[in-house]
Amino acid sequence: MKVGFIGLGIMGRPMALNILKGGFELTVWARRAESMAPLLEAGAKGAASAAEVAAGCDVVFSMVADAADVEQVALGAGGVAEGARAGLIYVDMSTIAPAAAESISARLKDKGVTMLDAPVSGGEVGAINGGLTIMVGGDADAFAKVEPLFARMGKAATLIGGPGAGQVAKACNQILTGVGVLAVAEAFNFARKSGVDAGKVREALLGGFAYSRILENHGQRMLDRNFKPGFKAWMHQKDMNIVMQEAHRLGLMLPSSAATAQLFNAMVGSGMGEEDSVAALKLLESLSGE
Amino acid sequence: MKVGFIGLGIMGRPMALNILKGGFELTVWARRAESMAPLLEAGAKGAASAAEVAAGCDVVFSMVADAADVEQVALGAGGVAEGARAGLIYVDMSTIAPAAAESISARLKDKGVTMLDAPVSGGEVGAINGGLTIMVGGDADAFAKVEPLFARMGKAATLIGGPGAGQVAKACNQILTGVGVLAVAEAFNFARKSGVDAGKVREALLGGFAYSRILENHGQRMLDRNFKPGFKAWMHQKDMNIVMQEAHRLGLMLPSSAATAQLFNAMVGSGMGEEDSVAALKLLESLSGE
Repeated sequence: MKVGFIGLGIMGRPMALNILKGGFELTVWARRAESMAPLLEAGAKGAASAAEVAAGCDVVFSMVADAADVEQVALGAGGVAEGARAGLIYVDMSTIAPAAAESISARLKDKGVTMLDAPVSGGEVGAINGGLTIMVGGDADAFAKVEPLFARMGKAATLIGGPGAGQVAKACNQILTGVGVLAVAEAFNFARKSGVDAGKVREALLGGFAYSRILENHGQRMLDRNFKPGFKAWMHQKDMNIVMQEAHRLGLMLPSSAATAQLFNAMVGSGMGEEDSVAALKLLESLSGE
Repeated sequence: MKVGFIGLGIMGRPMALNILKGGFELTVWARRAESMAPLLEAGAKGAASAAEVAAGCDVVFSMVADAADVEQVALGAGGVAEGARAGLIYVDMSTIAPAAAESISARLKDKGVTMLDAPVSGGEVGAINGGLTIMVGGDADAFAKVEPLFARMGKAATLIGGPGAGQVAKACNQILTGVGVLAVAEAFNFARKSGVDAGKVREALLGGFAYSRILENHGQRMLDRNFKPGFKAWMHQKDMNIVMQEAHRLGLMLPSSAATAQLFNAMVGSGMGEEDSVAALKLLESLSGE
């Protein structure tokens, strides 16, 4: 099986490297030539365009910034559809709106390309150590063919449903983790302002129904005043914007998600966009006398 | 050590029974005589008032509805302070405002009674099987003396800090569990309205940073359409009201807590108060075409 990878940034580079380490023949392309260098050194073949990657591969992955980028990579000039051989499976692992993923998938299908939407969670660390959670939407046969490759990049890949379903699951993930960060920040600031040690509160609560991985991991980072990303606030802002746009499209009231989207807006607006989302605690503190 | 227990409702009764089963001599009192019957049958001694309980005991627990009840039990006519022997430790396990607990503790101290605030989480099931999480505020020596009794009622008792600190931790617990329920309900309704199986989303997300005990347990109950309490919506409404009152008193912005308090208001207002808080899902669904 010949594999292609398009988009070699913070996430894409280690993911592509893990495929290469799995013994697969890999062809890569990235808009910026210097992004390709570490992969070429590790033994990947370089291509001159997404179309050239598609022409030489059975499965092509992409990991780019947003829906406009995915659209360009998949359907633009020099894109995947242009070069695709018959039976190509195109797997986009970027986080974009479910509606955008569905639309791109439908247009690719008309050109004979099967698309899976397969966004991930687990961040840069998960990408490096092959520990990502991969949420997949699309065709079951295509999923089965790609599974050995997902297994190089993640500890779990789940087929959630048809086209767009992976993005829906990712949106749900961003709701739960985003709201989770805000709730922990609120609880810790509540404790502090009440003169109580937030670390002891966390310790006591980890044993009960309040337990979450956010309380355990992100909560500890808040206590350590470690606001280094991790997952940058502006990226979570972008993802919550997708959630809010979908909520508007579908006519859904999402009150805690809306509060969280506003929080991330305020973080970006007050210059915390490049910090980890756990810096939410600092924002709340700054509004309560610290 | 002679032990007293005041308030023998859904929570207090099994908690008192667990102390009795631990081999401690137990005296009980409840406003409604019929509430005392199961304890008397099991071997507890009945008293005619809270004061009489206090007169015969070294440690007295209470588990009542709200701050007014605690005030009455502790400081009212026929209350604990009236009958207390020297060195009495009074442990209130009700959930009330931190400020109220602090105030009652201070007034009891003037009368020679040491108070611990020790609210619990874990619900009726935890009360029955001795699996409560107990969050304690107050004096460390008193905490050490009461620990063997806490061990009969709970799997973990943590001294969080001084008077009121147990209630602060409990408020934090109610923030995290309440916001958690709302966030899971939002994610599941988002999935449903997008035409995606919420059960598969939950399954995929349990393996990542979105994991919480709320997603695992309460999420499963939402999928099972099991809205039986559990923890009734009106009780979580009451607890979130405490959080909001404290937020007002302290000048704290708690956006996701506020959204959650409003949710529980709407649940009570639309006749779901007696259902479990997971019925939040039904409320959201009812606003999005179901």
